[in-house]
This record gives sequence, C-alpha cells and structure tokens, in this order.
Amino acid sequence: MSFRVWAPRAKELSIVVSGKAHKATAEAKGYFKAEPPPEGSEYLLRIDGRDLPDPRSRFQPKGIHGPSQYVAKSFDWNDENFRAPPLSAAVIYELHVGTFTPEGTLTAAAERLPHLVELGVTHVELLPLATFPGRWGWGYDGVALFAPHPTYGTPADVKRFVASCHAHGLAVLIDVVYNHLGPDGNYLGEYGHYFTKRYNTPWGAAVNLDDAHSDEVRSFFIDNALMWIEEYHFDGLRLDAVHALYDESALHVLQELSAAVHALEPKLGRPIVVIAESDQNNPRLVRPPEVGGYGLDAQWSDDFHHALHAALTGETNGYYSDFGLVEHIARALTDGFVYAGEYSPFRERRHGQPLGDVSGHKLLGYLQNHDQIGNRARGERIGHLCSEGLARIGAALVFVSPFVPMLFQGEEWGASAPFQYFTDHQNPELADAVRKGRREEFRQFGWDPEQIPDPQDEATFKRSQLDWAEKDRAPHRERLAFYRGLAQLRRESPELLDGRRDLVDVSFDEGKRWLRVQRGRVTLLANLGGDSVDLPAPAGELQLSFPEAAPKQSGANITLEGESVYIFRA
Amino acid sequence: MSFRVWAPRAKELSIVVSGKAHKATAEAKGYFKAEPPPEGSEYLLRIDGRDLPDPRSRFQPKGIHGPSQYVAKSFDWNDENFRAPPLSAAVIYELHVGTFTPEGTLTAAAERLPHLVELGVTHVELLPLATFPGRWGWGYDGVALFAPHPTYGTPADVKRFVASCHAHGLAVLIDVVYNHLGPDGNYLGEYGHYFTKRYNTPWGAAVNLDDAHSDEVRSFFIDNALMWIEEYHFDGLRLDAVHALYDESALHVLQELSAAVHALEPKLGRPIVVIAESDQNNPRLVRPPEVGGYGLDAQWSDDFHHALHAALTGETNGYYSDFGLVEHIARALTDGFVYAGEYSPFRERRHGQPLGDVSGHKLLGYLQNHDQIGNRARGERIGHLCSEGLARIGAALVFVSPFVPMLFQGEEWGASAPFQYFTDHQNPELADAVRKGRREEFRQFGWDPEQIPDPQDEATFKRSQLDWAEKDRAPHRERLAFYRGLAQLRRESPELLDGRRDLVDVSFDEGKRWLRVQRGRVTLLANLGGDSVDLPAPAGELQLSFPEAAPKQSGANITLEGESVYIFRA
Repeated sequence: MSFRVWAPRAKELSIVVSGKAHKATAEAKGYFKAEPPPEGSEYLLRIDGRDLPDPRSRFQPKGIHGPSQYVAKSFDWNDENFRAPPLSAAVIYELHVGTFTPEGTLTAAAERLPHLVELGVTHVELLPLATFPGRWGWGYDGVALFAPHPTYGTPADVKRFVASCHAHGLAVLIDVVYNHLGPDGNYLGEYGHYFTKRYNTPWGAAVNLDDAHSDEVRSFFIDNALMWIEEYHFDGLRLDAVHALYDESALHVLQELSAAVHALEPKLGRPIVVIAESDQNNPRLVRPPEVGGYGLDAQWSDDFHHALHAALTGETNGYYSDFGLVEHIARALTDGFVYAGEYSPFRERRHGQPLGDVSGHKLLGYLQNHDQIGNRARGERIGHLCSEGLARIGAALVFVSPFVPMLFQGEEWGASAPFQYFTDHQNPELADAVRKGRREEFRQFGWDPEQIPDPQDEATFKRSQLDWAEKDRAPHRERLAFYRGLAQLRRESPELLDGRRDLVDVSFDEGKRWLRVQRGRVTLLANLGGDSVDLPAPAGELQLSFPEAAPKQSGANITLEGESVYIFRA
Repeated sequence: MSFRVWAPRAKELSIVVSGKAHKATAEAKGYFKAEPPPEGSEYLLRIDGRDLPDPRSRFQPKGIHGPSQYVAKSFDWNDENFRAPPLSAAVIYELHVGTFTPEGTLTAAAERLPHLVELGVTHVELLPLATFPGRWGWGYDGVALFAPHPTYGTPADVKRFVASCHAHGLAVLIDVVYNHLGPDGNYLGEYGHYFTKRYNTPWGAAVNLDDAHSDEVRSFFIDNALMWIEEYHFDGLRLDAVHALYDESALHVLQELSAAVHALEPKLGRPIVVIAESDQNNPRLVRPPEVGGYGLDAQWSDDFHHALHAALTGETNGYYSDFGLVEHIARALTDGFVYAGEYSPFRERRHGQPLGDVSGHKLLGYLQNHDQIGNRARGERIGHLCSEGLARIGAALVFVSPFVPMLFQGEEWGASAPFQYFTDHQNPELADAVRKGRREEFRQFGWDPEQIPDPQDEATFKRSQLDWAEKDRAPHRERLAFYRGLAQLRRESPELLDGRRDLVDVSFDEGKRWLRVQRGRVTLLANLGGDSVDLPAPAGELQLSFPEAAPKQSGANITLEGESVYIFRA
C-alpha cells in the first residue's frame, strides 16, 4: 500500500515515526510518495524542517496539533442488508455528539437510538465529526477533516455507531464543512494551494476551487466525502454553507462532488444522498445535471424556517424582517422558496429564483436547527420563545408540509437545555477573540454583555447537554407524544408523503391569523392568533391536536381556540 | 419627462445648469427625482456639495470629468426594413473607430463601409464607444457607459453610423464593458453601491451584482444594453470578459441581461444577439435557460485562436503553452473547446466542460482579434509573425470552420500597421503607472524596455492606424482577394454554413504537419510544415489556394508545397 502526500510547497518531505525521519520521494505535481507508517503508529510529516500533522490524517488522538495516527481501515461490518429509506419517506434528526448525552461520546449516543426509532426518525444527521480545537465545540472549526474528533471516539467508534444505527434501521448522514477551515491548527496552507485570494469569505481567504492547483484541493474534499461513505458506511452528507464555496470553473465543485458520490451507488448497492445548506434560494443546486443543475438530492429551506419562526415568535430582527406574515408560511408551503425573485428588505436586493417543478422532497423543512437556535445570543429553543400552542403549530406544519421533516435533538420533547455557542479554544488569544466577538456581536442588538454566555466557559457547554430524565415528565412527555403522533400520521398518510407542492392547498386569514392546509384526506387547521375563530369543520376524524380536547362544534363550524392546531383525516 | 438619479450615498442631490442648482426630491431606495435639464444643455449633479457628471450621462462633450449634456433622443431613422442576418450566416468585423481611419471618427469609418460589403462582412463590431480618459485609447477604460466617446462623434453621429451600416446591409454590434470601470473618472462609487469587496478582480473591487443594492447596479448595466439596442439601433452586443462578472445570486446577471435584450425582439421586430467574451470554456453561457443555460447567442473561442496561433507561429509562451499541435486545431474544429475538462498546464488545473450538442454557430472563430494582437509587447499581427502561406492557412481554417468567422480590421489585406497598446491618460500619475506597468509586464518575458512602445506616446496610437492606400498594392491586394474568396466560398457553400460540429471530418499527421478538413463537398488541405507532402487528391475543383497555382498531380495524389493551403469543392 502506498502513502502519498500532496505538498507542492515543500522542498522535502519526510515521515517521522518514533523520532526517526523517513524521506519521501518527490513525484509530479507536488506529490510525495513513501512507505506508509506501521499500522497504529503515530507519525508527523516533516516539511522543510517543520513537523506537522498529516492533512489527511485519519486520527489525531492528541488533538489538532498532535501527531497523526495511521489507522487500520478494516472493520467487521454487519450491515450488508441495510438500505436507507428514500428522502421522500424520511424524518431527519440533527444530533450533536458532545451534547446529545452527558458523556458526549458516540458510544453513549448509540444507547439512545431506540428513542429515535420510537419517535419515527429515519435518518440521524451527525453534526461535524472532523477534529476541531479543544475538547468541545459545535465542530464547524474543524481542521483535520479526515479524522474524527477524539473526545467523540476513535475511527472504530464512529464505525460502531454507524453499524448500530443500521442495526436499528436508521440511516446516518454526516455534516461536512468544505467552505472553510477552523482558525487554529489549519496547516493546509503550509502544504499546498488550498486557499485563494480571489474571493473574500467571512472566514478570510476562500478555499481554492478554481485557481491554479485547484484539482488537488477539489480532490481533497471529494475524497473526504467518499471516505465517509465508503469506509464509514454513512448514507449521505450534509454540506455546510455551500454558498461560500466560490467556484467559477465550468464544472462547479458541487456538481463534481455529487456525481462522484452518486457514482458509488451501483458499486455499494445502496442509495446515498447529498444535502446542502444554501442561502441562495437557487433551484440549480437540486436540479439534475441534464437541465443544468448540480444534482444534489436536497437543500435546507431556511425560508420555511424563517416564515414559521417569525410568525410564531413575532421576532422581526435581522433576517426575520423578511418574514412574519401567515402568508409567508402559506407561500413557503406551496412555493418552497418565499423569496423566488422578490425584493428582500433584509438583503436589500431581489433574492432567489422559483423552484418550478422541483419536488418538495428536495427541501428539508424544520422548525428548529442547531444554527437557528445556537446563533441566538442565549441559544433558546422555540419553546422558550412562544407558547406551547404556537410551538405545536410549528411542529405540525413541519410534518404536514411537502418537505422532508428535520428535528434538532431534544426538540421532540421540548428540551429545556438551550443550544448555546460553546468553544474550547486552547490558544488564549483566539479564546479571548471569540469571547469578545460574541459579546460585541450581540451588544449591537442591545444585549447586556453580562447576559451573553461565555463561549469558553465549560458551563456553557454543559448547559447545552440534553437532560434525558425530563422527557418522561410533564410537560415534555406530552410534547414527545405529539411529535410521535405527527411522525406516525405522516408515515401512514400517503398524501403527506407526496412531494408535489402544487397539490398543497393552503388558505389563511392574515387578520385573524388562521391557516388551513389541505393535503388529500388530511386537513390541518391552525390558529396562530390569541382569539378563538370559527371555521367550517373539515371532513374526517380528529387525529392530533393541541389542546388535546376536540374543538367545540356549532352547526357546520368548529371553534379553534387561540394558539391551537387540529389535524383531521377523512 | 422625468429625470431620476440613483444616489443612495447622497444626502442631497441637485442638478446644476448654467451655475444654478435645482434641488431634486429624494424618493425610496436612494432615488432622486427632478425636472430634466433643458434639451442640449450641459449640467452637473451636485451631491453633498460636490459637482459630478451624471452616471447615466448621454454625452460628455468635454470628456470624463466635464459636464454632462442632456441629449435629444429623436433621430430620423430610415432603417425600418433592415434585419440583421443570423449568426449562422455571419462574418463579423472588429472595428476600432480611432484607428480604422486616419480621422478616427465614426463619420470617416462610415465612408469605408463599401469595402466591408465587398469583403463579405455581415456584422460590424465596434470596439467600446463609452467615454474613456483622454483622446484615444482602446476603450476598455470607459467610465461614462451611456455616453459615446466625444472624439469618435456625438450621439447623433453614432446613430448616423448605425443607419449607414444598415443602409449598406450591414448589422452592427457594440462591445460593452460591464466587468469593471476605468481607473480615471469613475465617480459611480460616490453615488451608490456599484462595487463590492466580496470578490477581487485584476482591476480591484468587483462590480456589485449580488450584494446589497445590487438590483440598481444590475439595472444600470442592463439599461445600458437596452439603450444601445433600442435608441441606437445596434443589432447586438459583445460583452467584455464575462468571467469577471462575479454573481452568486440565483439569477446570473448574464441570464437576466440576455432575457431582457431578447425580450425586445418582438417589440422591435428584429433579431438581437448577445455575444460574450469568456475564458471559462463553460457551455452554460450559450445553452438556453430551459436547460440551465444563460441563453447567450454565442461566445468567443479563444481555444480555436490559440490552437491556430501556436501552430502557425510556433510560439509556446504563456497560454500558448497549452497549444501548438496540429491536433489542437483538429480538436477545436470538431469539439469547439480544446480544453473541455482536460488538465491545462498553463492554468495548472483542469479546464472547461464539453460543448455537447451546442452548435458551432455559438462560437466565434478568429485568427486574430484586438486583444490577441494588442496584448503582445509590440502589437504584431499574424502576418508579422509567420509566412504568408501559414497566415493563409489560418484564414482559410477560420472560414472553413463550423464557427462564426470574425476578422480584425485590416486583417483582410494583411495590414502593416500593428495594433499596439495606446492610452492618453491625462492624470500624470496614472500615465506614468501605465507606462511603467507595460514595461514591467514585458520585462518579465525578457523584453528590452526600450523596445516596448510607450502607450502614452501619440506615435503609438498613430502607428496603429490602418494605411488604406496599401490594400490595393501587392502583396496586400492578393491577401485581400484571398479573404474575399474565402467569404464568398463560405457564403455559397451550404455545408460551410452548417454549425453541426459532428459533421466536420478532420484528419491530420502531427509529424508531417498536414491537416485535412472535409465538410460536405468542400475539402481543405493544409500543409503547415516546410516540406512538401503527397496526399490523395480530393474530389472536385480547386476553389482557392496559396500559392495560387494548382498543385502538382501524380496519379491519385497531389503534392502540397510547404506552408500551403488548397480548398476544393466537388
């Protein structure tokens, strides 16, 4: 087996094992070739006299600055017969390993899988695993993209987790960050032309996807994607913030990546999905290449989230200023993108393009996610910001939508734990900058800096961990039952699993703030206002509601209490 | 009639006519509205105490820093019946007003139109008309995009030129530069958010096409395009360097611009074309929107140019290092793009994507253009760099190609005038920087700075003007007859007007350096090598050749002299 390193910026490269340097042979295009280190051994790469971790390190047992470990790829898989369900029938669950359990490990997370099965989840989506600075963090500061974060577990632990999911009938997706690298421990620039100054991103120089030497950089990310699929048996990827992947070349890296991943399907005999986070409202991402698309399987729908959040909480700051009407929810349910060429006051420009015939199953619909919770000053979940009734309306709309529902860990029982912004930067200057930056960011919105949790404080991390004991207690127990009911109703109602947005029939009254969604035999009635309203009674039986009691009937009408939701099925 | 100015950065705006300021009324989104200045009057816009030219000035009689003139739009058109021929039957002629005639005016240029008709040209393409610094220049430093350069003529002169072209049966295209503005006299930033720091271009901050306030910036350029078409009766646009138009929004500005321009066609009752200069080899530009394209009508094919130039001159520096084989010419003729995903040594990355079923008529084919000549240290034309025979081979291949042929002014008679880089910057620092920059650029390639023409020297400009007397003298006369013959042969051979690249049959011998192109009844045989070669005689009669004499026949073979070309038609 050969060991190759791309290091065009290095004059010389050696592999250092147990203090002994083994010189690698220079090859064309900046590659160096050598005998691999012994399996299980720790090593560093010496480039021009400096000892650094391997850019493609499979494990960093001592963290981002420490030696790499040469890890065996063999694993005793037993999931030959597992096939992920299609996105059209999926319920996705965002899981952050560090806060999902008090232990913060993959092994501990695996013990909670029966809960997810019972809830009706089909796909677990792990927040990034790539090694990042310190012991805890969200994971979007990763720098060793091929190495699982050591406090979560070893590479074998990741494989055991995936195998355990598959044994429980659950597919597993992994969140990967290809648009930037973390500010600490990023040694890639020492090796090669991983970054370009052509484009400016919020994190500095952009990843080099179209400048000289970009072939190798693109391969770096695409090989990473393929590794998680092939070697770790993940069922798909969630690509972070693809709008920050600047690529003006004739083959967009997203199209190349999607094609490379899907090319594995016949070989592996199982379906793989690639899902993007994008703020562009651009249908090109999820259209097939035959019509000029990038061929991704789905993308997150922030418009649907923002429409729900603004209408339920009444918040109108920042990007929520583009939303707030019941009409925005209605538009999201039928059109997918609320902004499909319209002027966005927040962006101060027209935004998006119409989705046309793109299926609703190419959008993920969610009431909450790690970003929308965690990017708040204090990391509040929706239940901390509005009434139980309004939160239930939001959940019901997610499951009755034509989109692929996604939940954030603990949402199903209205977890009391926030999801705050926490870091464990070891570099004192960076730690200070992150702490100050966070305070400064929210000071602008009128926050008292004392009220902003210190991201570097371990208590901020601990506070964000789920308290599993509460899920069986009121009122969490009732919320959980409601979510289970929603997942079951969706699973058992073919019309709810239909992605055709043009069949979604929505009516609403902006003044009285009620909304009616008709999908085949299923009718959802929601009253977002505080006052009760009378509406014609839908056909069929009440399936789920909040409050639980059936609504009062008078003649052909029923009375919806304030902040209530009712789902009927004929 | 209303007069509106977009000036979101101005607190106040007045129109200053004859020293008197008339205050404009602020409207939504940064617009100001006022009574227009009297027709024909000169005016300035006073924003926050500073008097500046109008960003949409229709004429700058005293140059880029002077007052704007409010110009009448009426003109006595007499071209109702003119319809531009389709690109499939076009021969385009690049014309730089300043150097096309000794006078350097549109009026003088119009007198030469009979020559173009006789040559077989169908479309005149004017290098940029927008007002730029100084008296002469290429025009790519324009800053008043709505105002024709005053030394070329007035707005009425432009209309008279277009009308004259149409009266001669010639269509007229205009080269527009939307990717940057010139370094002197660019006041746009004082008015509004015309630039963004998101992207870095060779000219500094990029034009803002997707950031806040970009709607108005996009309108600025699109309205400019529409003005040339609607008010000036141009038949189309040539968009400069579209690869520097950075736009990550869901509707690329090229698609929006193309749609806006083509939407005029039913109203105007005549066809309009939009042609891009692009170095991306990206078929998306010329594919229709239905399959995810931007819907442009055509783009320049630098690959075909580079393949011809490198093979004919033997030059291998810079981007010519990717070319040089006869095979590259053959590949360009059949595939359009030579680099369609292959590794480009010059770019140090893979480049381009295959054109697939895109017609050859969506590419412009040329042996020379203003850029490829003028960007050389001394502005040499192809005839200055290779033998007459090789230059004729290049010309013949352009006209026998499946692409839309384009010539650069004077190419048709092998003009002795170079096309050097000339400027007339009035700002002394800028003049010095341009002079030094030019020398420095070529010093890197081993040039003696003394040999680099001074771009600020009037002699450099004058040297680049065509000498019309020479076209009727040997050897120019013969070259001109050859070009006329090529245009006529193309016009009269339906197979040459067929854009299907898959029907182009090319064979070649890299060692002996001959190339054979078969298109229906037409056969081109070219010998790029110095030694004679024997090839099977094609069917049909000799139509055109260099040298003129028919080749020697021996049995079924004919003998091609060194550096010769023969075109037969059965």
